[in-house]
Parts: sequence; C-alpha cells; structure tokens
Amino acid sequence: MTSRPPTAQPGRFAGLTPLLAPRSIAILGASNDPARIGGRPIAYMKAQGFKGAIYPVNPNRTEVQGLRAYPSVSDLPETPDVAIVAVPAGLAVSAAEDLGKRGTKAALVFTAGFAEVDAEGQAAQDRMVAAARAHGMRILGPNCLGVFDGRTGYYATFSSSFDSGWPVPGRIGIASQSGAYGTHLYTLARNRGIGASLCIMTGNEADVTVGECIGWLAENPDVDVIAAYIEGIREAPGLIAAFETARAAKKPIVMMKVGRSALGGQAAKSHTASIAGDDAVTAAVMAEFGVHRARTSEEMLDIAQTAMRRIYPVANTLGMITVSGGAGVLVSDVAEQVGLAMPPMPDDAQARLKALVSFCAPRNPVDATAQVGNDLALLAPFFESVVRDGGYSSILGFFTMVASSRRWPAMLEKLNEVRLRYPDRLFVLSVIAPEAGVRALEAEGWVCHEDPSRAVTAIAAMGRFGAAFAAPPPAAPPAVPAVSLPAATPSEAAAKRLLAAAGIACVPEAACASPEAAVAAADGFGYPVVLKILSPDIMHKSEIGGVLLDVADADAVRTGFATLLDRARTAAPRARIEGVLVAKQLRGGTECILGIHQDPVFGPVAMFGLGGVFVEVLQDVVFRRCPFGEDVATEMIRAIRGFPLLDGARGRPKADVAALATMLARLSAFAVAAGPRLRAVDLNPVFAMAEGQGAFAADAVIEVG
Amino acid sequence: MTSRPPTAQPGRFAGLTPLLAPRSIAILGASNDPARIGGRPIAYMKAQGFKGAIYPVNPNRTEVQGLRAYPSVSDLPETPDVAIVAVPAGLAVSAAEDLGKRGTKAALVFTAGFAEVDAEGQAAQDRMVAAARAHGMRILGPNCLGVFDGRTGYYATFSSSFDSGWPVPGRIGIASQSGAYGTHLYTLARNRGIGASLCIMTGNEADVTVGECIGWLAENPDVDVIAAYIEGIREAPGLIAAFETARAAKKPIVMMKVGRSALGGQAAKSHTASIAGDDAVTAAVMAEFGVHRARTSEEMLDIAQTAMRRIYPVANTLGMITVSGGAGVLVSDVAEQVGLAMPPMPDDAQARLKALVSFCAPRNPVDATAQVGNDLALLAPFFESVVRDGGYSSILGFFTMVASSRRWPAMLEKLNEVRLRYPDRLFVLSVIAPEAGVRALEAEGWVCHEDPSRAVTAIAAMGRFGAAFAAPPPAAPPAVPAVSLPAATPSEAAAKRLLAAAGIACVPEAACASPEAAVAAADGFGYPVVLKILSPDIMHKSEIGGVLLDVADADAVRTGFATLLDRARTAAPRARIEGVLVAKQLRGGTECILGIHQDPVFGPVAMFGLGGVFVEVLQDVVFRRCPFGEDVATEMIRAIRGFPLLDGARGRPKADVAALATMLARLSAFAVAAGPRLRAVDLNPVFAMAEGQGAFAADAVIEVG
Repeated sequence: MTSRPPTAQPGRFAGLTPLLAPRSIAILGASNDPARIGGRPIAYMKAQGFKGAIYPVNPNRTEVQGLRAYPSVSDLPETPDVAIVAVPAGLAVSAAEDLGKRGTKAALVFTAGFAEVDAEGQAAQDRMVAAARAHGMRILGPNCLGVFDGRTGYYATFSSSFDSGWPVPGRIGIASQSGAYGTHLYTLARNRGIGASLCIMTGNEADVTVGECIGWLAENPDVDVIAAYIEGIREAPGLIAAFETARAAKKPIVMMKVGRSALGGQAAKSHTASIAGDDAVTAAVMAEFGVHRARTSEEMLDIAQTAMRRIYPVANTLGMITVSGGAGVLVSDVAEQVGLAMPPMPDDAQARLKALVSFCAPRNPVDATAQVGNDLALLAPFFESVVRDGGYSSILGFFTMVASSRRWPAMLEKLNEVRLRYPDRLFVLSVIAPEAGVRALEAEGWVCHEDPSRAVTAIAAMGRFGAAFAAPPPAAPPAVPAVSLPAATPSEAAAKRLLAAAGIACVPEAACASPEAAVAAADGFGYPVVLKILSPDIMHKSEIGGVLLDVADADAVRTGFATLLDRARTAAPRARIEGVLVAKQLRGGTECILGIHQDPVFGPVAMFGLGGVFVEVLQDVVFRRCPFGEDVATEMIRAIRGFPLLDGARGRPKADVAALATMLARLSAFAVAAGPRLRAVDLNPVFAMAEGQGAFAADAVIEVG
Repeated sequence: MTSRPPTAQPGRFAGLTPLLAPRSIAILGASNDPARIGGRPIAYMKAQGFKGAIYPVNPNRTEVQGLRAYPSVSDLPETPDVAIVAVPAGLAVSAAEDLGKRGTKAALVFTAGFAEVDAEGQAAQDRMVAAARAHGMRILGPNCLGVFDGRTGYYATFSSSFDSGWPVPGRIGIASQSGAYGTHLYTLARNRGIGASLCIMTGNEADVTVGECIGWLAENPDVDVIAAYIEGIREAPGLIAAFETARAAKKPIVMMKVGRSALGGQAAKSHTASIAGDDAVTAAVMAEFGVHRARTSEEMLDIAQTAMRRIYPVANTLGMITVSGGAGVLVSDVAEQVGLAMPPMPDDAQARLKALVSFCAPRNPVDATAQVGNDLALLAPFFESVVRDGGYSSILGFFTMVASSRRWPAMLEKLNEVRLRYPDRLFVLSVIAPEAGVRALEAEGWVCHEDPSRAVTAIAAMGRFGAAFAAPPPAAPPAVPAVSLPAATPSEAAAKRLLAAAGIACVPEAACASPEAAVAAADGFGYPVVLKILSPDIMHKSEIGGVLLDVADADAVRTGFATLLDRARTAAPRARIEGVLVAKQLRGGTECILGIHQDPVFGPVAMFGLGGVFVEVLQDVVFRRCPFGEDVATEMIRAIRGFPLLDGARGRPKADVAALATMLARLSAFAVAAGPRLRAVDLNPVFAMAEGQGAFAADAVIEVG
C-alpha cells in the first residue's frame, strides 16, 4: 500500500484535510461494477492513479475491481482517513456509527433519503450526525456528490461527468452545495480549458458546510481562486472565517448565491432543506469581504479565469485599443455601468497617435481603426502607446477576427514584446480565433474573452478584489456599556432610556405629570413642541388622537394637556394615565430609518434607509452585520440611492451625516451588547438635521423576545 | 453576362433593392490585386458565384481579375444597378456625379475621409450627396464597409472577415452602422452556426440610414429576424416605418444601441459624426414597437437564434425540467428578474411524478434529480408530463452533460417523440455537448443554450415579441383644437389658457385687480387659497416673497393682497403690477410632473414622473413619442417605480390615474398640434387628487422658440 501525507495545511480548517485530501479511503457499499454508485469512485481512482490506499468494504466479495475487499469496517487493516458511505439509507446510520468507533476522521455520505425528503429523513440524519460527533468524526453530506481532485486522483464522487473527459489541472477550487450544478460548473470550466480540478459538493450539509470548504480551499497552497455555488447558508461562523481567510491570503472568491427571488427561494427549499435566508443580508456579507457575486455561471468562470493571472489592481483603470469604434462605444457603456474608470490618454500621446493615423480616435478607447488592424507597422506603436503612455492598470485589446488573419502571428510577436515589459498589468484580448489559438494566447499570459462586455465585467472585478485586499481593517465599533434588556418589550420611554445609555440621541422629551411640569419642560426645549399621551395601556396613541403637533406656546401646552387627558379618558376609560410626554418638535430635518433585526444565520443586522416612501415603496435600504464602526456606517449611508437628499440635493442644507453615522455605529454595538433576546430595534423616524446639528430619534421601538 | 432580377419586394423600402440586391454592379477603383480594397469585392463575388454582371472600372487596365475592365463609367455597356466607389477621397465626389449622370440607382461608397474627419470632409460629403440627389441616386456610406449576401454571392464589401470562412446561409439579416462591429457580429454568428448571411453596414449615413435598411430587411421575404447595431439615430421617419413594417410582418428586431453612458456617448461622437441623441427616448421608441434592446452581442445572437424557430408566445409561460435542483433555483431567479411566469404544475401531475420518483420536486421547476438523468425509462415520462400536463408555451430542459453521455441518443429519441407532437411550443435545451452534437440538435428543431440564464433571457424575449405582435393598435390620441402659439414664451396665465383649450385641467384660479375681487374669487373656490403677485415683469415670484400659501379666510385675503403689492413695489419698483392671482389650494394630492420636450430626432416627446425627489434624485420618469391615447398614457403612469404611491401605498387613497392619463394624452396631442415652435412644456406640479377627483396642473410653463 502506498500512502501519501496530506497536504501540509495548518490553519483553522485543517481538520477537513482527512476528508478533502486523504491518505487512505474506505468505500462502504463498494461495487465491482464500475458504472454503479459504489463502483465509480474506485474505477475513477484506479484510472487516475490515486496514490493513497483504497479499501473496498463489501460483505459479499473478497475482491472489488481487482482490489482486496473487506467484509466490514472493523476488518480494515488500518483506520482510513475518510470513508465513502454508498449503502442504502437504512444502513447509513449504523455505517457512520461503525466508522466513528473505528476512529475514522471523516465520512463522505453519498446516500440520499434524509433531510431533503421528509421529517423521518431529517430524524435519521440527526442520528447519523450524533453518532459521528460522539466520535469526533466529520460528515460530508448526506445526499452529496462528493469530492474530487484531478491533480491527486482522489475521486470520492459518483459524478458521471468524467464520461466526457478528466479535469484540466489548475489552481481554481470549486465548492458547491449542489452536486449537479457543481459538476456542471466544473464541466464548463474544463471545456473552456480552465484549470478547476478540485471540486467539493456538500449536499445536505448535516455537518460540514460549504463555508468550511471555502475556508479549507483558502488555506490550501495549491489553490489561488475559489468559485462557490450556494443556495442557502447554514452557519455564519465558518463562512465568515472562510471569507476572512481568503481575503487575508489575497485569494478571490467568486460566488453564485441563488434563491434571491421569491420563486427561486421556493425552489431552493424544495431542492434541499436549506435556509434560504434573507438574500439582501447574504449579499451584504459578501460585499463586506469583497466576495464577487456572479449572476451566471459564465460570469463566474470569466472572473475566475481572469483572476488566475493574480493581478488585482488597487486603483483599477482601463485603457482600450480597438479596431472598431463601435466596440469602443460598447465598452465605454459597460465600463461606466460597472464603475470602471477609463481616463483619457495624455494629450501629447494623443497628438502622436493622430500624427500616425490622422483619422484615429486617440482619447480612450483608442480607436486605431480597421486600417491599423490591417497594418503591422501601425498596430505595435498604438498598442505600446496605450500601455506606456496611458499607464492603465488593465488593457483591453479588441482585435476581433484580426486574430484569425494571416498577419496575426507577426503582430502578436510585437504585442508580446510590449506585454512582457509590463508584468504588473492585466492584458485582456477580445478576439475571435480558433480554440487552439485562444489556448495558446492564454498560455502566453493573455486573458481572452471573445465578448468585450464580459471582458469589462471581469476586469472590473479584478479591481474590486484589489481594493478589498488592500483595504485597511475597518475601525473598531464604538464601546457601549452593558445592556440589560427588560423581561418584555419596553415602553417607548424605556426604550429611549436604553438607547440613550448607548449614546443614541433621541429627540429631547420629558414625561410630565402636570400641566405646569409640561409648560416648564416646553419652555426649556423651546417651541413648538409635540405632546403625546403617556400611558402604559395605550400603544397606538395616534389612533385615539393622543398626539398633538405644533403646540406653539405655554397656553397651548396647558390646553393640549387637558385635551389629551380628556381624549384618553373617553377612548380608554380603564387605561392608567401617567401624564403627557412633551417633546421638542424638530423642523427641517430629513427623515431616516435605522433598524436592527436578527438574521437567523448572521445574527443582528443593521439597516439604514431614508424614511417614508424611500423605504416602503422603493426599498432603498442597506444592510450590514453588527457591530461596526463609524467608517462602515458612513459607507452604508452613502450607499443608498437617495443619498443626494442628505448631501444637499435640491438646494437643501447638507445633513449631519457624521451624527447619523455615529448613531448607526452605536446602534450596531448596542445590538451586539443586548444579546440574542433583542429581536428588533426600529428608530423611525430619525431626524437628520443640518450639518453640525445632530441626528435624533423621534420614536423608538425595542422588541424583546 | 448573366443577370438576375432583384428579389421582388414591393413596399416602402423597395427603392433600396438596386443597392442591396442588384442585378449588375460596377466597381470604381477596381484593383487586380484581390487583397486590396478595390479588389476584394471582385474576388469575393467571383469566388462565391455572384450571378449578376460585374463591371470593373479602371482607366489603366483592360482586364481586372479576369474580367473586362472599362476606362470610365460612361464606357460601361449598361447602366449598373449599383456602383462601388473605392477611389481616393479627392475623386469620390466626381465619381458620384458621373454615376448619377449615367442613371445608376445607387452608389456604395467605401472611401473614407468625409464627415467622420472634419468640417472639410463634411462639406465634401454634402457635395457628394447633392450630386447624387440631383440624379435620384441613393448613396450608402461614405466610409462604409458595404453589404454582403452570402446566399446570392453579392459581396460589395472589403471586409477581411471571410479569411476565416464564408457565411452560413440563413434567415437573419444584420444592419449595422459600424462596419467593424457589424462584421464582428456576423463572424460570431457564423462561428455559432447561426445563419446570418445578409449584412448591411451603413457607415457615415450621408443618405441611406440604418433605419431604411432595417425596413428593407423587414420587407424581404428571405429574412425572418433582424439584428441591428446602432450608435446614433439620424432620422426618425425611416426607423419608425421600419419598426412598423417589421412588427406588422411579425419579424422580431433585436437591437444594440450603444452610447448610453456619458463615456459611451463621447466615444460614439468620436467614432462617427452621429447624433447620440437622448438614449432614454430611443429606448422608449424601441419599447413602443417591441424591439428588443440587447446589452451585449451574445444576448443579441442568443435571441436572434431563438427567434429563428418563429415561435412567439403571446402569453409566455416557462416550464422547466432539470436534473439539477441548483439550476432550477438559478432559472427561477432569472425568470422572475426578466418577468417570465413559471406557474406550478397541476396538482394531479405533481402527484403522478412523486409516485414515479419519491424525492423529485415536481412543482416547477420540475427537479427530476440526477437519478432521472441517468434513467431513460424515467426521463421521458417526466418530460412528457411537463409538456402535456404543464401546458407551458416554452419548455426548458436542463440536461447539462447528460447530453454528452452514452445514454443520450436513446433518451433524445424519446424527447423528440414528445416534442414533435407539440409543434407550437418553444423547446430549449441547456446542455453541454460537443459542437457537432449541438448543431444536430438545432437542426432537429431544438434551441440550444449552454448557459441556462441566457436561455431564460432568450425565452422571455420570445414572449415579448409575441405580445408586441398581438397587441391591438393603440387608441387614437385625443382630438385637440388647433393651437396658435404666441410669438414668444407666454406668461403663466396665458400658458394655462392655451392648455385649458386643449382640455388640460389647471388648478382653479382667477386674476384679481382688487382686494374685493380676490375675496369674491376665494369665496368661490373655498378656503384655503394661494395668492401670487400678478405681473408680466416678475418671473420668479417666490424670490421676492410674492407667493402666499394657506390663506385661510376673507380677511387674510385682504391682508395678503396688500402685503403682496407692498413686497412687489419694494422689490421691483418699475414692474407693472396687474393685481393678484387667487388660486384654490389643493390638499392631499400627489405631486406629479408632466412635460414635453423636442427631441432632435423624434420630435415632441412626453415625460411623466412623480414630483420632487422622484424626478430630481431618482430620475424615475418615463418617456413617449407624441401623440398617444389614454391607453398608452396609463401604461406610462404605471411604468414608473414610484407608481405604488399613486396606487394606495402606505394607506393613501388611490390617485385619479384616469384623470392623469387623460391629461397626459391631451398634452401629447397638444404638443403635436402646437408644431415645432413649441420647445417645451413643464406642468410642475400637477396634483393627482383621490380617485374620481381629478388632476390639476398648479403651474405651467410653455417655452416657445
């Protein structure tokens, strides 16, 4: 028996190494038929030369596919790193028990019929996990398509996708919850000649999650780029740690997260027993760590392929040389849409290009015209000028079928001379050429995307990776004192006291038991004021006419006090009336909403939006995991579409964004300090006053669970 | 000399037939070298067997590429239908003159150095067009790459794209302003095996426009689908007529319109001398006629290819059968995003599928699971159930690499049996298979898109085409009386009188010369009222404090009258004061904006939006060419993102959308009746009151030029 040490991979996720890069593997339910589920892994590993030990387990055979077979786990000559479980559902739980007892580090369960089917299946799955955990064994699956690594020949999978070919060796790792979609992605990659040879499919995720697998890939020195496909996230800590690990290692993650629509969420639930979660929260977490969310598998592979060059510009700019003005216009449109800057060429360089070809357009995109595309002597100086004089971090050459012409090899030689002098630049070609020609270009170091729009999307993604990798660590969240939540949802006044203790400014107000006290409070705030009936038994004050606005002077306060008491006694004769709340009435502020809710996966999440129609009709809000500092809070505020309203649009004064950011950051720290019993916080409205004049919550609800 | 009658094509655009499908062609500047611009068309046509007469014109040769050459146009044995002009810029104008005199129907000018270069070039171009028009000759170009038709062998082009292969015969026609991008598109199509053999590139469009070419393709019985690439539209009538012709003929148009960004618009102008125009207006015109706007060339070809099946469901629904639940979720997301309905399977059919495979997900997407993908006996009944029981107009099968497996041919036979029984359905496959396999599927009648997201986008487009083709003609615009615009921009009151004559309701108001008249008017309207100073010399009333709101009773009217006169005399001592405008103050309405502006290409265009931040910060507005009826106006109002605010969101009363629609339609008719001197109309705000209570313009500006 040959055996190979697992890849040395210290780190938080090293515990998955026996599962994902084992030295020895047992197959429970091993079949002599290489076309059956229990036969395929053996056939694949034999065909691809897996260097570790393979132990078929089959009580009915002494030999399986030419290998010695063992009647049971206890008969194995050594404890395997990992065992594939390919037995019927009724036998899988006891198989896990046997493996755990033997000390196996990990089981990889192909068997279906668990949580994805019904409650009974869920119960069986729970028993299997309990059995494994009792022995410290990890489980991948059940109902999973497994793992393969084309470079080591480890094929713990029954995927039939190798009928059409083996993986291309390479440094992209795939982690997918869906087996079928994971192998679909891998097959697309292989057909495009992209090296994505390591693929992990997690199925039901009874134990090992896709987040942990991403983390293991991030720690794996043989992986540069991670492609992930997710339907619903089951646990946050593993995923967050994975994202952190990948960012620290400067490894880009490109992720598809499906189930974002109502329809898709429904389909996701019928597909696995996944928690679809709040898509907007997941998107916010991905954005927080610079994970690229791909909308399609093509976009995912475009970006992964481009990332293989490992050039991630921190301040990305695009220079384009084109033989078609039309393509230049198209690329300009896409670049603006994806936020990729295309600064103009320097004036003197433009003048030199004009001198070379009078009717060229030398600004950027540099339209060298089709004539230059036909002329070797002209193309090279144009290309060199864009690279050298333009100084762009990314260069896109649109040469379309020039790359299929007889002149191309000579041209390419000149282009390569320039490219090799600038190894820190990202060079992308949009060409139409036979596959072999494209592969040769890629092997030289060019990135090729036939479609210029897709090229721009991929180039822009490299810049966002660069910015995320280079970003300074975010500021610490503000310190807030310990929060002691009451047993039940507090009154508005009590809620405001809790928030005030965390430094969250509320509109000045005072609970007043007498008209005289109310006048004194109002005199102190200045007029006008708002009066609200104060009663623990009246929750919806406005419904009984219990709120008076624009109370203009002391007399009006006295009259209003009497009116409110009168209305309350009429509408709610048994209510305990504690008096009247007097509050300063703010004018000229912009209404905002700040909120907290508990995400089932990510815990407390803060929301910011403008008030009124912006939240309720336009859903113009932004989310972020708690806690965070004022830098992040400022980013959030600036990210809403309606931000111009806080920034002086329509002749308004600029709002006190700094005070809003302070409030939002403190609220995020408050949410964490309050712990999981805090169900929600709703500060609505918050008045953002003019710059330097603060932001104040006018109403506050804290829900306690 | 053999010669062939041009395709019989009566219709508005038949005048282009000599240009686009000629019987005889002369080449001015004909070269014996098949690699030179003046030599390529001859070489191509000889190689591809053009059946018409080819007459090289070259004063220095008696023979060109084996054909008899003629020293001049006057020496030609017959008048050619079309002549290619491939002479230097200095000779092109006189060449056009010679051709016109000879009676040539059309000239196709390759020569560059005209309007795309400078003012001098523009002047030469103008002279060339004038010379042509004097003789009734049409001009394509100058600076154009020409025309080719792979089916007839007509190659009036110097494109080098045939180095890599000749066109695939087919029924897609391409019309492009850009030569390089047009041939790029054609090459992409050819490489995908898509039959797009007829390609027209219009260059500078000194005379013939891309709109007219689209129209000619729409009238061409050999064309089913039109793909167009546009940077800027030069004339509306041809394009509108083309869109109308194509819609009437049920021929879909897929169009890229680039230059939508600031950057792209700039690049478009440096590329050709095109009018980039207002992109939003162009988009509105495309939407009006059901033209699909493609964002990328891939999307364009995906949709054109799918349209080749000529199945355009009027009420499109998508049923999906998948071997990957993940792909099902992804497709559900995309379908929701593009507005394609995926109704569930009937309950009884779901039960039958569950009985077949207990862990399938039979709702829709129907996840047959990878197991069914491995099992011929199961796949066919699943597929049949989706088609028969689901009754969807479009069916997407996600079979990924199952289509590369050894089981596939037997499976496909079963799938074909089902497909052929439902010839009115659109069948799309998302498969990974070798190119030859995909081509074979396409030849059988399947549409193949490897990427399921792209498949959904294309399927949704078929439904939008179907809806556009089936749409009843829009209602007639309302009749409005003749409009007699004043010589200069009228006062607010005069503007409102003009609008009132067209049936556009304004807030009730009265010009009052005395306090008593003002009180009488206010009593008539009911309180509160608004008072505004009335003076032809004070345009910005609010700047001098010349507007009073919330005027509550007769006394306040008297006081206010005096206040306004006083303020006006102080602020503008020389202003002629005519009195005070008394207007009813509306409460509780929703502020809207209705406007008109003159688009340089499309003439008067109406705009609708919600007032305030919706227009100014969110640009939440919709445009439409004038005039139109109330049906279109209603669609416009419903199309804005903020429409829920008019439809009862946040507990508001529903607004009187019918009254708004009436106003908008009348405004559109007014704009046309007013003629081109009407520069703009701005009704801002318009108050949309509660249902049944009307909509009233509170302010109106009419700009006259």
